[in-house]
Amino acid sequence: MNALAKIKNRLDNGYHICVGLDSDINKIPAHLRNEDNAILKFNKAIIENTSDIAAAFKINFAFYEKEGARGMELLSRTLELIPDDVLVIGDAKRGDIGNTSQMYAQSMFEHYKLDASTLSPYMGQDSLSPFIDFSENIHFILALTSNPGSHDFEKLDLTSGKKVYQEVISKVSEWNKSKNLGIVFGATNLDELKDNIQNFEDLFILLPGVGAQGGDLEGIVRTFKEHSNNNFIINVSRALIYADGSEKFAEVSREILENYNRTIDDV
Amino acid sequence: MNALAKIKNRLDNGYHICVGLDSDINKIPAHLRNEDNAILKFNKAIIENTSDIAAAFKINFAFYEKEGARGMELLSRTLELIPDDVLVIGDAKRGDIGNTSQMYAQSMFEHYKLDASTLSPYMGQDSLSPFIDFSENIHFILALTSNPGSHDFEKLDLTSGKKVYQEVISKVSEWNKSKNLGIVFGATNLDELKDNIQNFEDLFILLPGVGAQGGDLEGIVRTFKEHSNNNFIINVSRALIYADGSEKFAEVSREILENYNRTIDDV
Repeated sequence: MNALAKIKNRLDNGYHICVGLDSDINKIPAHLRNEDNAILKFNKAIIENTSDIAAAFKINFAFYEKEGARGMELLSRTLELIPDDVLVIGDAKRGDIGNTSQMYAQSMFEHYKLDASTLSPYMGQDSLSPFIDFSENIHFILALTSNPGSHDFEKLDLTSGKKVYQEVISKVSEWNKSKNLGIVFGATNLDELKDNIQNFEDLFILLPGVGAQGGDLEGIVRTFKEHSNNNFIINVSRALIYADGSEKFAEVSREILENYNRTIDDV
Repeated sequence: MNALAKIKNRLDNGYHICVGLDSDINKIPAHLRNEDNAILKFNKAIIENTSDIAAAFKINFAFYEKEGARGMELLSRTLELIPDDVLVIGDAKRGDIGNTSQMYAQSMFEHYKLDASTLSPYMGQDSLSPFIDFSENIHFILALTSNPGSHDFEKLDLTSGKKVYQEVISKVSEWNKSKNLGIVFGATNLDELKDNIQNFEDLFILLPGVGAQGGDLEGIVRTFKEHSNNNFIINVSRALIYADGSEKFAEVSREILENYNRTIDDV
């Protein structure tokens, strides 16, 4: 089952929430913290309790890289816990000159065997094409992010009349010959979504910003449904995986995910 | 000796070439390829033959990440081989929302104990500040890169009259309160350097594009000298480390570095 089949299957069945495994030893339930392989046990419980009703999992590389080689070993062991029919997004926001991006792409798709990646567009097409050429994988390119710094460069006005992030959306659409591309589009401001959704064409849309960052879930879903666009994947990390600090934390995470799914269904 | 002291010492002594350790098993001399720890032996020979007359070393993370945890182990072991008085740049082009960038910064400066990093500016100030706050380390932020894709977004015209990369230079200068910031500025087009050098202020400038990518070394150096700017660091990777495939490869690399140094001195 390739990445495109995995995500289409989930989206067609109404699952739109991506579970972000931003697993941090300082935030997981206290009873786990001093155990051996604490992060792995935490990830295992979350995965087992959510994988059948999630759209995807997103692994944030930073949380593993900070432990060096040992962290990357933990990342590999976490990936082994995820059932083969769920999309796994490697969230590493890579992007470099061609021969270097080639190595990053090999890392993500040949070494870690991830289904999907997130990429930074700054360096342009030849920095992305070694990824895009992995045509059975999905690549989400940063367009508009959900952080305050999105004002610094992403939202600057170009002489063409577009903003920088809108030019990214437009170019990524052009490069989407294999229908395997997506964008990251922050969900903290609903008006921005409404102003741009008509330009998303058949790109997959990964939306951070719901949950801890305060994005309006119902408003987002309504906007996509009004445009008959089912290609939206809403990432929730902290608000879902750290919802509860008791021994039942993973069951609570499942309940929250069920609530999200019900909300999406009811819109 | 902190990062700033290391680089100032080298630049003051006329050393401006950064040796890029883009070490690839398919490109190192044939006699090493089948040995155990081939990459480590290659790196050791290059480091021993160049570290006293280089401005810095640059480690390209992609070349290590593609082997997963084993590659990161190799990266750590390579770092141990570099004398403590030479700046080491971790070239990973990271950049993410604040709490994630914080983890990436911990990875680079607490785990790997690198002196300097390269960063992607796309997501703006709060994506960079967890790095910038490591004020004894140097951070090179991508401005104008040397690849064809620099036309896609970096060189777009803003309504302000600047290009996107010029706005990056301007903002990075504003953020340079601790005098620990730099930019990456591609050296393949000398006119672009001449048009922008008056805006570099006291930023460190890391210039890729000399060597395999064809940048004009003498022209670059002359431009900096004409502007009494000594903060330039010219990266050479492939043209230096893969110059020779014989058992004397590292001595040849040293000769090439000596030639570069002489050329810079003679301008």
